[in-house]
Amino acid sequence: MADTVATMMDYPLTLNHLLTRMKEVYPIQEVVSQRPDKSNTRQTYANIHDRAQKLARALLKAGVGKGDRVATLAWNHGSHLECYYGIPAAGCVMHTLNLRLSPTDIGYIAAHADDKIIIVDDVLLPLYDQFKDNIPAHRTIVIPFGGRVPDGMENYEEFIETCTDDIVLPEIAETDGCAMCYTSGTTGDPKGVIYSHRSMVLHSMIGATPDVLGLSNTDCVLPVVPMFHANAWGIPYAGTMVGAKFVFPGPHLDPESLLTQFMTEKVSFSGGVPTVWLGILQTIEKDPAKYEALRGLRTAVGGSAAPPAVIRRFQELGITVLHAWGMTEMSPLGTVAQVKPHLAEKGDDVYFSYRARQGYATPFVDLRHRDSDGQILPWDGKSMGELEVRGPWIASSYHNYPEAADRWSNDGWFRTGDIVTMDDEGYVQITDRSKDVIKSGGEWISSVDLENAIMGHPAVAEAAVIALYHPKWDERPLACIVLKDGEALTKTELDAHLLDEFAKWQLPDDIVFIDEVPKTSTGKFQKLALRKQFEDWQWGKDQRMAI
Amino acid sequence: MADTVATMMDYPLTLNHLLTRMKEVYPIQEVVSQRPDKSNTRQTYANIHDRAQKLARALLKAGVGKGDRVATLAWNHGSHLECYYGIPAAGCVMHTLNLRLSPTDIGYIAAHADDKIIIVDDVLLPLYDQFKDNIPAHRTIVIPFGGRVPDGMENYEEFIETCTDDIVLPEIAETDGCAMCYTSGTTGDPKGVIYSHRSMVLHSMIGATPDVLGLSNTDCVLPVVPMFHANAWGIPYAGTMVGAKFVFPGPHLDPESLLTQFMTEKVSFSGGVPTVWLGILQTIEKDPAKYEALRGLRTAVGGSAAPPAVIRRFQELGITVLHAWGMTEMSPLGTVAQVKPHLAEKGDDVYFSYRARQGYATPFVDLRHRDSDGQILPWDGKSMGELEVRGPWIASSYHNYPEAADRWSNDGWFRTGDIVTMDDEGYVQITDRSKDVIKSGGEWISSVDLENAIMGHPAVAEAAVIALYHPKWDERPLACIVLKDGEALTKTELDAHLLDEFAKWQLPDDIVFIDEVPKTSTGKFQKLALRKQFEDWQWGKDQRMAI
Repeated sequence: MADTVATMMDYPLTLNHLLTRMKEVYPIQEVVSQRPDKSNTRQTYANIHDRAQKLARALLKAGVGKGDRVATLAWNHGSHLECYYGIPAAGCVMHTLNLRLSPTDIGYIAAHADDKIIIVDDVLLPLYDQFKDNIPAHRTIVIPFGGRVPDGMENYEEFIETCTDDIVLPEIAETDGCAMCYTSGTTGDPKGVIYSHRSMVLHSMIGATPDVLGLSNTDCVLPVVPMFHANAWGIPYAGTMVGAKFVFPGPHLDPESLLTQFMTEKVSFSGGVPTVWLGILQTIEKDPAKYEALRGLRTAVGGSAAPPAVIRRFQELGITVLHAWGMTEMSPLGTVAQVKPHLAEKGDDVYFSYRARQGYATPFVDLRHRDSDGQILPWDGKSMGELEVRGPWIASSYHNYPEAADRWSNDGWFRTGDIVTMDDEGYVQITDRSKDVIKSGGEWISSVDLENAIMGHPAVAEAAVIALYHPKWDERPLACIVLKDGEALTKTELDAHLLDEFAKWQLPDDIVFIDEVPKTSTGKFQKLALRKQFEDWQWGKDQRMAI
Repeated sequence: MADTVATMMDYPLTLNHLLTRMKEVYPIQEVVSQRPDKSNTRQTYANIHDRAQKLARALLKAGVGKGDRVATLAWNHGSHLECYYGIPAAGCVMHTLNLRLSPTDIGYIAAHADDKIIIVDDVLLPLYDQFKDNIPAHRTIVIPFGGRVPDGMENYEEFIETCTDDIVLPEIAETDGCAMCYTSGTTGDPKGVIYSHRSMVLHSMIGATPDVLGLSNTDCVLPVVPMFHANAWGIPYAGTMVGAKFVFPGPHLDPESLLTQFMTEKVSFSGGVPTVWLGILQTIEKDPAKYEALRGLRTAVGGSAAPPAVIRRFQELGITVLHAWGMTEMSPLGTVAQVKPHLAEKGDDVYFSYRARQGYATPFVDLRHRDSDGQILPWDGKSMGELEVRGPWIASSYHNYPEAADRWSNDGWFRTGDIVTMDDEGYVQITDRSKDVIKSGGEWISSVDLENAIMGHPAVAEAAVIALYHPKWDERPLACIVLKDGEALTKTELDAHLLDEFAKWQLPDDIVFIDEVPKTSTGKFQKLALRKQFEDWQWGKDQRMAI
């Protein structure tokens, strides 16, 4: 059967091809970086290429070996892009440390990853000092923006010049690791995944397609999403693959600084979490005419759900908000809320309701959702189950953390922890996190749906619905309600309000009034605290005034 | 080092994912096919999926094995798309027979490929009858558009219903073959290449990106380029991956039929050879107002160079012509003539000069050009050498044809046979075919450049420049000129005309007047015939009037 073998070249999918392409095809394309002092530095792609190559050779000269982790603790800028390409070109794994985590966590993560070399922005040295002693033997390279390089650390500019031409870059297989990220670790230890050259290349190819991020040589891209967070959603790789101009904001992520860069550098594509865009919207609203030139800007929004009203208002301003969903374990792109033409024709309300969903899977991401018995559910727009994903840029395990093997199904799908419905055209709607969904008598009730409905009652300021143990139904919902000043509410009144939308068995069994819903530092409900507070709840004993 | 291994899933890149995606994500998207009687048939993606699955199971039931070739002899239509997915889903290699070749060649090709089953449009049976007896034992399945299915052949509609649910589709590895095409064989035997699932998937991913074909779910795609020619440039796979609406023209490739479909089905993307677009342009010019709705249409043009004036005129009409270059051995996409923003700013003349080039490489296509000594040439915009290519969707050999191993360099690059210059931003300009370039004293002279310049002389109707043996310089150019009626030209006059553009050593040594340049059926110069006619040329003996 040898004569039926495909006759295609065995050409590996590595980031090195993209690095070479930067110099060969787009040598004079620009990379603009805003420095800590707010001045802009301008580099060309050819310059980034040359310096990334120097960095790779210098790393090898410094003695790192294949697969060794080289970490970065850095804002978004050109030198970080050099690390994105130079570290993998040396055969190493670039480990981006998330500077938003606690110093304790960052130290744990750097030690767990066994980072051999850490490349740090000088402006981040005060943070670095808080955890560097927790990391085993390592070298520190400081990217100098004006600050002094402390004793015992090396200057990045001098370090890359230690490279010599006799150092040969290693052959890279497409399955070799190129980068790693840790999840933020809201539950349990932070856990890391190692991306391969192949996974990153495929993620870039699909990321660039029109219905995902849609990146072109004609674009000017400003990633607000940090390069230390989930590969900045793959934008640095996908964007350089197509030769886009880049504008990196450095540490300046306030609305005024971003809007100034958008306007002066003629940014056409951006991406960031909803809070960034809420801030930008508030600034624009103060003087919409001033920002008229932003019409045509597209931006990806992810990390958490963007409010539909915000998506709609941006659209009125001529700015397209592309709602995307993914996870660090997914490189991160999973779904994008593109609206199919036949749905877009159904009017604004339908259109924006789809724009605010999680969207449908990108090519080469498989989705399914299963109930608590492991049954695969129909895509009927109503059956709720945990979303599971599969694909070439999705993790198959955590790095050195076998304890979390239960995050994968027996047949190898990654369990996202998100409770979703899927409709008959593949649109995903997240209804809950799996830890918050109420598992009642084999059926699931969305705590988020109940909360939204309860908060729609005029007497209610805020509400969290939690699952508590029930001897007969396993779990039942308890509604924890913050009333508006001077208002009152009975369970009978609330039931009447909810019965428009919910079946009787889905209603909270009891309600309890509290002063406020406990929240995390980013404003998310801390339901775990509520569950702990009410863990001994006696159903039906009318304790609502007892708190 | 096990702990440094990437933790990504081992997920194969196969067409089966795209087939499943058609039903899961885009079930109600439309596929319109124009039948031989000019009526339109409408299918959904879900229907195409189901029928492709049936075809796959029916093929397995019919006894084909992994890697067996199943051929098609068919126009562009929905059932051909079913073959594009169904044949590979059975683990077979879809072999698209080029119905434009001579019956002798098609018979040779089908026999060389060892096609086990041939799926034929009923309207193509008269052609099929001319070569079917030259193919060893095989089964014939006829796609019925109204004609009778001859004895000894099977009806496609009945054949796919022979599938049974107990037939399990095979596991596919991404390196398995999925399709094959033969080159037209202008020199020597037709030669085939076998694409792998992996190569086709990667080609689709890059093909869909904005700067290559730029395909989206919002597009309506009409591929004029035949599905029997170089995978219709990958449009069927890339387009279904993103969920585009398809309109297949069947056998109706005349300008009026195409324009009617463009208008009524609201086509947004098309692709075909220059002659198709010349015909369409002529029809539009008769009544441009009638075709105003075509503004916004984009079309890929390849196969041979499109005249710059045509590209420009289409742009005035609001139709973007995307000049692309590739080869059957390259799946076929290699370069696309996108104009970088900084070049587009330099005014229309620069802009359109770039639009008319071959363009720069798509991601994951490597280019280089080498001189006759094998030296890699600089990308300086003037050094001429043979273009060589490398990449994951480029052939590494021909199928069962070791005699042509010299088409690959010792280090594994495919030698395209095109003589090119490369500029410092990667733009390719084809200056000649390697068999036509004049290799004079170690330097190369472009026959095409000389021809274009000579045809710019007012006395000349047509000219072909050929390389002939020269005892001192190895080869020297002979200009074969067709004069306009009543005109005359001396070598001295011609030299004076050419010296504006060429160095003295590049000028033709002699000129000869002929009645016409011999041409192929597609209008290309048959220089081989001229070289044969003048092979005993005595340089400098002034034989110009002797013909």
